[in-house]
Amino acid sequence: MVILVLNCGSSSIKYQVIEMTEGGNSLLAKGLVERIGINDGVITHKPGGGKEPVKTVTDIPDHTVGIDLIIKAITDPNHGVIASLAELDAVGHRVVHGGEQFKESALIDESVMELVEGCVDLAPLHIPANLKGIYAINELLPGTPQVANFDTAFHQTMPAKAFLYGIPRRYYDEYRVRAYGFHGTSHRFVADEAAKLAGLDFKNSKIVTCHIGNGGSVTAVLNGKSVDTSMGLTPVDGLMMGTRCGSIDPGVLNFIHQKEGKSMEEIWNLINKESGIYGLSGGLSSDMRDIRAAVEAGNQVVTDAEEAYFYRVKKLVGAYAAAMGGIDLLVFTGGVGENGPEMREYVCKDMEFLGIEFDLAANDGVKGQDKILSKPESRVKVVVIGTNEELVIATDTYNIVSKLGK
Amino acid sequence: MVILVLNCGSSSIKYQVIEMTEGGNSLLAKGLVERIGINDGVITHKPGGGKEPVKTVTDIPDHTVGIDLIIKAITDPNHGVIASLAELDAVGHRVVHGGEQFKESALIDESVMELVEGCVDLAPLHIPANLKGIYAINELLPGTPQVANFDTAFHQTMPAKAFLYGIPRRYYDEYRVRAYGFHGTSHRFVADEAAKLAGLDFKNSKIVTCHIGNGGSVTAVLNGKSVDTSMGLTPVDGLMMGTRCGSIDPGVLNFIHQKEGKSMEEIWNLINKESGIYGLSGGLSSDMRDIRAAVEAGNQVVTDAEEAYFYRVKKLVGAYAAAMGGIDLLVFTGGVGENGPEMREYVCKDMEFLGIEFDLAANDGVKGQDKILSKPESRVKVVVIGTNEELVIATDTYNIVSKLGK
Repeated sequence: MVILVLNCGSSSIKYQVIEMTEGGNSLLAKGLVERIGINDGVITHKPGGGKEPVKTVTDIPDHTVGIDLIIKAITDPNHGVIASLAELDAVGHRVVHGGEQFKESALIDESVMELVEGCVDLAPLHIPANLKGIYAINELLPGTPQVANFDTAFHQTMPAKAFLYGIPRRYYDEYRVRAYGFHGTSHRFVADEAAKLAGLDFKNSKIVTCHIGNGGSVTAVLNGKSVDTSMGLTPVDGLMMGTRCGSIDPGVLNFIHQKEGKSMEEIWNLINKESGIYGLSGGLSSDMRDIRAAVEAGNQVVTDAEEAYFYRVKKLVGAYAAAMGGIDLLVFTGGVGENGPEMREYVCKDMEFLGIEFDLAANDGVKGQDKILSKPESRVKVVVIGTNEELVIATDTYNIVSKLGK
Repeated sequence: MVILVLNCGSSSIKYQVIEMTEGGNSLLAKGLVERIGINDGVITHKPGGGKEPVKTVTDIPDHTVGIDLIIKAITDPNHGVIASLAELDAVGHRVVHGGEQFKESALIDESVMELVEGCVDLAPLHIPANLKGIYAINELLPGTPQVANFDTAFHQTMPAKAFLYGIPRRYYDEYRVRAYGFHGTSHRFVADEAAKLAGLDFKNSKIVTCHIGNGGSVTAVLNGKSVDTSMGLTPVDGLMMGTRCGSIDPGVLNFIHQKEGKSMEEIWNLINKESGIYGLSGGLSSDMRDIRAAVEAGNQVVTDAEEAYFYRVKKLVGAYAAAMGGIDLLVFTGGVGENGPEMREYVCKDMEFLGIEFDLAANDGVKGQDKILSKPESRVKVVVIGTNEELVIATDTYNIVSKLGK
């Protein structure tokens, strides 16, 4: 079964074409459409098999035009990967928010579309873009089965104690204001993969997963289910991130409002786009590689910022150990989690009380490979796993579409 | 040395008269002035030695009149506790915020007053009231030495990684926006007392202190110094409290603003006065005794709220264990900490991975007495300690004033 996986943002679309079989999968192509609705749109198509990427600059006024370009690219006689659209069996979409309605991936039909539209209030910037991708496929490939995979779904097993905020109850009752969590597809994938690598039973273990990229979240996975996660109603909560502030005293927002007269809209922009490691490093960079270079050059402000960034991950590992009554497995993933040995070392240092015996030599230089980083005698296993959200979306799509008509 | 301890709020003054000697101390009297600047002011004076409290209703237009009433009460021939003002050696003030200037209590002089005034921006509601108390003593008892004890001082040992927020660095550089923490006087006192009770060396131990009252905070005390605490720039951060929200996704504030058009001022009021356990219980009560009664009566909404409230304490214990590389001693204090066995049991349950062996029988029914609650074989000791901030203020005042003129 050949599946097109789409991740539609407001001005970009990431895609992969994955062939799923009963025994495995193979990535046929991937690519990126950028600058939708802006001038000089661009599609970068990377066919599999070591072929050169193909980059095309053209006006891309909307998502339908963008997806049409993707369809043309994957069926192109020269750099395409399928002979015709008839070979495309299904489309899987990443949908950022599924509210309380979606506890797992769902075959898209009219009632599902209505439920997704009902979540727009919870993610007003992201869901409309996700919906545009679904509408475009309806138009361009009518009849092709589509599946929605929700970034929030894995966290729907969180208990009330973890998802309720300390605000008047009516905000939950009337608007469903609560913590949802994000990166669920990634946390689910890496927890499962890591359990296999460490020889643990996913359904009978206490796992903490750290997905640290430009965005970042930590999740407590108890017996295969998410029981707590650090992002909340929105992806601003929890860890310090590339440009997002993470957990912060709401009094800070009030202080900025009082002192500088900034509106809520301006403050919201500030804490989403100008904060995090970027802001705390004095505007140096949101990329942890640039941060590391400045730390190694002896910059004290940046060193403090990096340590504050790492420290929050470490505290959440302890918090989630308390939530689950201990921990069997600690997992790192995401751009920084996979490629940042310093972050992993910081988090695992002096954690023997938790049962972690970290192997500094095993950690050293590990970038982007799946590996056990704890010593053989460590009661708690520490593992780095490359995340692959597209593969999860393709797998969910395969499983759902395979059952159709049966 | 006879010391008057004052805790001046915006419309109330708490006071104690404490006699300090080299070997000990005794509480001579305590009381409360209420409804300052409102009609029907009232002073309730409680002399020591089992005498009946005396309540007087009279107009109290300002703090000077309030403190004058206190002076008259403590020197009254019938229910007073000192013969004349000549017997009053010093006054100790609780000051809520000392910014980065004050790392310990300070003898009040003009330069100290200037520095305290410089902190008004950081606590605009509280510091002016504290200052009024100091001015009133200047006026009524000129020449009497006064000492300021800061709620933030104990936390000034926190490292940058713990106090920096993930926002543009300029907010720290220009305005000193950072986490300060509060309840410092209480955390310092109970950590020290608990170490004595548990037979540990305060200066060489890993202690987590949970001060849970109407406000609440948790502190990590490493080798006698605060290295992290859950309140931040303001006392809204961290735990869920009586009416304050505690840690919350800033996206929730933005959601409320977008959805209901509330201004920052309205939202600030909402998260300070209508939130916490009061709000989450659907407006039932901010008093945990009322909450408990509703839980025991089977109210599910209130049960969820109570569990969410307890759960945050538990997670912070784990987080601070991670921050310190483990924990030797866990301390409960404050109204709920001292009188809420259910909260203590919840926090200590399934914490064997940390080294806690909780003694359910020892915990049962313990309200307001200092006691060890862990089993004898428990590696981590769990202790409940009655806090006594006034005694710390009197002790600091005694130590500072004793050295004057030497």
